[in-house]
Amino acid sequence: MEMRKPIAVSEAIQRVIDRVQPLGSEKIALAEAYGRILAEPIIAKHDVPPFDKSPYDGFAIRSEDSLGASGENRIAFTVIDHIGAGQLAKRSLAKSEAIRIMTGAPIPDNADAVVMLEQTVETETGFTLRKPFIANENISAQGEDAKKGEELIQSGTFIHPGTIALLATFGYAEVIVAKKPIVGILSTGTELLDVQEELVPGKIRNSNGPMIAAQLARMGLDSKSYGMLADDLDACTATVKQALRETDVLITTGGVSVGDFDYLPAIYERLGADVLFNKVAMRPGSVTTVALADKQFLFGLSGNPSACFTGFELFARPVLLKMMESEKVYLPYAKAVLGEDFKKANPFTRFIRAIYESTPAGATVRPAGFNKSGAVSSIARGNAIIVLPGGTRGYETGTEVDVLLLCMEEGDATWVL
Amino acid sequence: MEMRKPIAVSEAIQRVIDRVQPLGSEKIALAEAYGRILAEPIIAKHDVPPFDKSPYDGFAIRSEDSLGASGENRIAFTVIDHIGAGQLAKRSLAKSEAIRIMTGAPIPDNADAVVMLEQTVETETGFTLRKPFIANENISAQGEDAKKGEELIQSGTFIHPGTIALLATFGYAEVIVAKKPIVGILSTGTELLDVQEELVPGKIRNSNGPMIAAQLARMGLDSKSYGMLADDLDACTATVKQALRETDVLITTGGVSVGDFDYLPAIYERLGADVLFNKVAMRPGSVTTVALADKQFLFGLSGNPSACFTGFELFARPVLLKMMESEKVYLPYAKAVLGEDFKKANPFTRFIRAIYESTPAGATVRPAGFNKSGAVSSIARGNAIIVLPGGTRGYETGTEVDVLLLCMEEGDATWVL
Repeated sequence: MEMRKPIAVSEAIQRVIDRVQPLGSEKIALAEAYGRILAEPIIAKHDVPPFDKSPYDGFAIRSEDSLGASGENRIAFTVIDHIGAGQLAKRSLAKSEAIRIMTGAPIPDNADAVVMLEQTVETETGFTLRKPFIANENISAQGEDAKKGEELIQSGTFIHPGTIALLATFGYAEVIVAKKPIVGILSTGTELLDVQEELVPGKIRNSNGPMIAAQLARMGLDSKSYGMLADDLDACTATVKQALRETDVLITTGGVSVGDFDYLPAIYERLGADVLFNKVAMRPGSVTTVALADKQFLFGLSGNPSACFTGFELFARPVLLKMMESEKVYLPYAKAVLGEDFKKANPFTRFIRAIYESTPAGATVRPAGFNKSGAVSSIARGNAIIVLPGGTRGYETGTEVDVLLLCMEEGDATWVL
Repeated sequence: MEMRKPIAVSEAIQRVIDRVQPLGSEKIALAEAYGRILAEPIIAKHDVPPFDKSPYDGFAIRSEDSLGASGENRIAFTVIDHIGAGQLAKRSLAKSEAIRIMTGAPIPDNADAVVMLEQTVETETGFTLRKPFIANENISAQGEDAKKGEELIQSGTFIHPGTIALLATFGYAEVIVAKKPIVGILSTGTELLDVQEELVPGKIRNSNGPMIAAQLARMGLDSKSYGMLADDLDACTATVKQALRETDVLITTGGVSVGDFDYLPAIYERLGADVLFNKVAMRPGSVTTVALADKQFLFGLSGNPSACFTGFELFARPVLLKMMESEKVYLPYAKAVLGEDFKKANPFTRFIRAIYESTPAGATVRPAGFNKSGAVSSIARGNAIIVLPGGTRGYETGTEVDVLLLCMEEGDATWVL
């Protein structure tokens, strides 16, 4: 029997990350850009705001005209115009003139302060005020938010709704983003049935294929399914070769261990692929294998659902994000207090499907139930992964542990503030 | 001038949540189900695993045949068959017979233990072993992960990749999910230009419309744009009426304050809408207004980008999720240590665009820069919102504060474990 030498998880991650080649960029419409990775920096094309504007509903005045105003000496202004946002004043101010101005409207030419409505008392021709104003009081200054030419967001940033707002502000009707990798999925295993098939003795339905497609969908990526194949070396080799012609990355499930029908190692050999590792010091998923055929990544994930899931998130996800030159390729991290004992010893780093909760009382995490590598119910119940370092003897309730967060797109059940 | 009475944020949220009506459900293909909300519980349609199976590569034996084995008394077995996952043994075992069995294969009829490959020494006709095995040793028992009939996941749960795996396991080729609300977006304001238009004096490009479309996209929801309208009561009323015929929810931006061109309050009156609130004790976004026209929600968000963003996440997001009967409608919460001083007093609850980082050294958060309600650059830079309670006088570096997380779909820049 082949003996494989396990490497540390961090070393395995480094090995795959080091070999990533960027995919290049493309130009798309702004409306399609949410969730893509910027392949250009956002440079301020003009000042923001682009002109001095009023942050309040009120009256634009020349501050000098308010000098000496007090409760005993209210100063009167005559209103000569009335502008809302998007409108320009028809002329500039003479002494003791004012222009009624609404939030967002540009400050008229020689005005330099805005009196808020509630600071005035109305008169027949305008208003009076009881305090002096200084130059630039209550004015949102041109460029106070961003200066023309400033690099505001760097290339490699995930485009979220705030990024979209900034792109729209500067008139990016189109934006240059990283190309998305085309990812193939091939599920191997003689035991596999398709989702609509009836169970028969000895067989189970393929859950890994649909799960990986959803893990890709969560990243905004499409996938190309190569279906399911029985454990047959020639048939699998042919399909893998075809997939390598049609995709940027191929993810297979099953067939990576050292069993008699585990043909992926032989396929890597036939392809002359460079196997980066085939044993990782982790549970589940120690047989996870990553290879490069020419420059194309082949992820050989375990056929066990829990191991398969973890292998994808630990190795495939960062590679796919790095291919898009993302700056943030790893799962979000949190610390949390263990809500129940986990007594198993951990010769290898252990990844446990878990339920994470964060409230003002603190963050807690507990195993999501049955946690063998073949488990599927806990994958569905969990929203996080507890990571327990190798070489430890089990953990007790109350210990602070490391957590990787999976389902943060979901949210919280209660409003805690 | 109209005086509005502000209500607390939590009260405002409660008022909108209390009025939500569910939209109903529809059946979709499993491949389309990622990100939808389950409208049926997932019940185990069969045991998982559906049969006793081998968790290892090894040999299936009758444990009784291994009785008395030791280093000095190795017991020999004859291998009579060889099965992989998905294959059935051709016959049951007689005394001292074994079947070579691979991970995932069903345990042969009268076998009750699996000897791992590494526990054996090969012989010409089989192997010998040096220790006795007990009944059920190294067997993944039928139903150990889930029992037939068990409710595993409740209705109202977000469908993530693990949920997909479970649905596939039980043969849900189609799944019943909540219908998605149709959301209209109308941006109002005479100052607005479309994204591809050149800047002209006094005008700015519409960033709120594209931003809200992206906020909806992040929730997996499509939007229907009603474009931009100048501040014109009749034109806006007509468009709002049309939108109410064509959508489940209408989000408008701008026009909700008490300025001379703020027509939304008048439109709500013309529609006979029930205004749930028009002033919230929060900064930014205190003029955020929510109304119900018959049963349809009208979200009147501020025209200021930062206020608009916050208003959407605080009020529209939970309503849209509750319409889909989601169990988790609020933004994910975290505590974090303030990384820099925030000296402004907070008469109202303050929502500050911020950059959140979580590492093994702890979670920190700091304002994302320029933080007036009209700010747009900090919306793009931030990945979280700091929430500072009203009635406080500013906070110093090192204080623990409440944070709402926005961009957790993005991830971390470093592998910290």
